[in-house]
Amino acid sequence: MYSHGRHPSSQLLRIHQNHFLIDCGEGTQFQLQRFKCKPFKINCIFISHLHGDHYFGLIGLLTTYQLLRRESALTIVGPPKLEEIIRLQLSVANSVLTYPVEFIVTQDEEVQVVYENDEVEVTSFPLQHRIECTGFLFREKLSGRRLNPEAIKDLSLSAENYKDLKGGNDIVDMDGRPHTNESLTLPGYVPRSYAYCTDTLFLPSIIPIVKGVDLLYHETTFIHEALERAIVTFHSTTIQAATIAAEAGVKKLLIGHFSSKYQDLQLLLNECQSVFEETSLSLEGHIFQIKRE
Amino acid sequence: MYSHGRHPSSQLLRIHQNHFLIDCGEGTQFQLQRFKCKPFKINCIFISHLHGDHYFGLIGLLTTYQLLRRESALTIVGPPKLEEIIRLQLSVANSVLTYPVEFIVTQDEEVQVVYENDEVEVTSFPLQHRIECTGFLFREKLSGRRLNPEAIKDLSLSAENYKDLKGGNDIVDMDGRPHTNESLTLPGYVPRSYAYCTDTLFLPSIIPIVKGVDLLYHETTFIHEALERAIVTFHSTTIQAATIAAEAGVKKLLIGHFSSKYQDLQLLLNECQSVFEETSLSLEGHIFQIKRE
Repeated sequence: MYSHGRHPSSQLLRIHQNHFLIDCGEGTQFQLQRFKCKPFKINCIFISHLHGDHYFGLIGLLTTYQLLRRESALTIVGPPKLEEIIRLQLSVANSVLTYPVEFIVTQDEEVQVVYENDEVEVTSFPLQHRIECTGFLFREKLSGRRLNPEAIKDLSLSAENYKDLKGGNDIVDMDGRPHTNESLTLPGYVPRSYAYCTDTLFLPSIIPIVKGVDLLYHETTFIHEALERAIVTFHSTTIQAATIAAEAGVKKLLIGHFSSKYQDLQLLLNECQSVFEETSLSLEGHIFQIKRE
Repeated sequence: MYSHGRHPSSQLLRIHQNHFLIDCGEGTQFQLQRFKCKPFKINCIFISHLHGDHYFGLIGLLTTYQLLRRESALTIVGPPKLEEIIRLQLSVANSVLTYPVEFIVTQDEEVQVVYENDEVEVTSFPLQHRIECTGFLFREKLSGRRLNPEAIKDLSLSAENYKDLKGGNDIVDMDGRPHTNESLTLPGYVPRSYAYCTDTLFLPSIIPIVKGVDLLYHETTFIHEALERAIVTFHSTTIQAATIAAEAGVKKLLIGHFSSKYQDLQLLLNECQSVFEETSLSLEGHIFQIKRE
C-alpha cells in the first residue's frame, strides 16, 4: 500500500565513491528511475528487516540488474533468511545472475561492523520491532591531513611529495628545499556520520550509538497522542524520536515512515520541533547534504 | 524495470461478480490505486509463470490486504513453488493472514480446468517459455433462457413462475392461465470468452484452444524483424501473434508485453494489423469491454 503519494521505505546514500541503498520497498526501482538516480552505481544494499515495506522491491531491482547485464559486484547486508528468499526466487526463474552478490547477515543481539572499506565503516545495531530488525550507522573514515593550497602554491612538488604530505610525512621539494608536514598541510576533515533507525519502539539504548551524528533518520510512525498504538505495533512517536535526537545530541533529525492515517505531516513535524528544533520531514525525492566541517 | 511509463504485466478482468487479477508484476497494487480499482473485490488471482515481471507484486498485494484486515477468501492459481515463495515471505514477517488463501497449482503438460463457479470456467493451457508457463482461457457459462420483457409485461407472475421460466419450464400464471416456456422467454446469451497468452514462443498448438474467443491477449514482445531474438528469448513477434489470432478466428486481438526497445508502439500495431485488422494495443489503464450478443 502507498498512501498520499508516499511509497514504501528506501533511501539512497552517497559517501564519496559509495552508493548505498538503504531498504528497498516495492517499487524502489521505479522510484530510482523517476528521480533519475543511477541504479548501477549502487554497490551495497542494506535491509533493516523483513517486513515487506522495507524489502519487497529488492528482488525486482536484482532482476533488473540481471536483465541489463550488470557485471560489478553487489553486497547485500540484511537479516538471516533474506538470502534464502532471494535465492529461491532466482532459482524458480532459472536465473543465474550476471554479477556476483555477497550476502552479509545482520543479527539483532549486538552492535557489529557489517561493511567497511577505505572511505566508510557501517555498523548495525539492534532495534526493537515485531521481528528482528537493525539500525545502521554510516561513518566516514578519518581522512589523513590535507594539502594547504596557500602554502604549496609556489613550490615544485613531485607525485611522491604529494603522497608523503597526505601520509603526514615531511618532504624535500623538487628544488631541494626541506619542509615540515605541518607547514604545508591542514588537519583532516571531521568524519561525517548518518544513522538510520526504522522500525522500532522507543529505544534509549541507541542513544550512545548514534551520539553526535550529523544526521539521524528516526521513524515517527505516529503522533504522540497515539503512543499506545505505537507501543502495540512496535513503532515510535514524534516526541520519542525527537527525544532520542535531543539526548544523543545529534546535529539534525530526519523523520519518516509516517502512518497512512496522516495525509498532512505538519503536526508530526511540529511535535518533533517542540522537542528538537532541527527536524525535517523526509519527503520523496528530497536530498539532504551533510556539509564538511 | 519499467520503460516509457509502462509497468510490468497485470490485468483486471471482471466477469459478472468475479474480479480476477491476471498476473501481478511489481507495483500492481499502486497501479490498482492509481486507476481507482477496488483491490478488495478481487476474488481470484491467476499467475502465468514465475518471472518477476509477472508476479513480484503479489506478495505486496497480499500483505496490504493483511494490513487492511481483509476477511474474504482469496484463491491464487499459479505454478508450483508460488505457494512456497509466498509462505516463506509471510513466515519471516511473522504474518498470519487475516483471510483464507487457497492455492491451486497449474501444470504445463496439458489443458486443465483450474477454477469454476456458477458464472465462469477458467482453463489453463501450456505455453512454451524459458520456464513453466501457462495461458488462461476465461469462458462465461451458458446462461439459461432469459425472460422476454414484451411477452410477460401484462402477466401476473409469482417468484416461482420466474424461477421456472429461467429454468426452461412451462408455467401456469397467478391468474390460472398456462404458458409454454418458449412463448415467454428468449434464448440465453452466447457465452463470452477471453484468452490470455504470455509469455510464449509462437505456438500453433494454442489455436484450437483459443478458437473463436471474443478477445485474445497475446504477447508481442518484438517486431517481426527481431524474429531470431524472439526465438532465443522464447517470446513472440507481432506477425506471429496476429497469425494465431487469424488462424483461431478470434474476434479481437490485444497485444502487449512490449520490449523496452520500443518507445513508439505504432509499428507493432501496424504489423499486427497487416495480418489481423482487429488488433489493439493494451495500454496502461485502458478498459476493453466484450459486448453481449
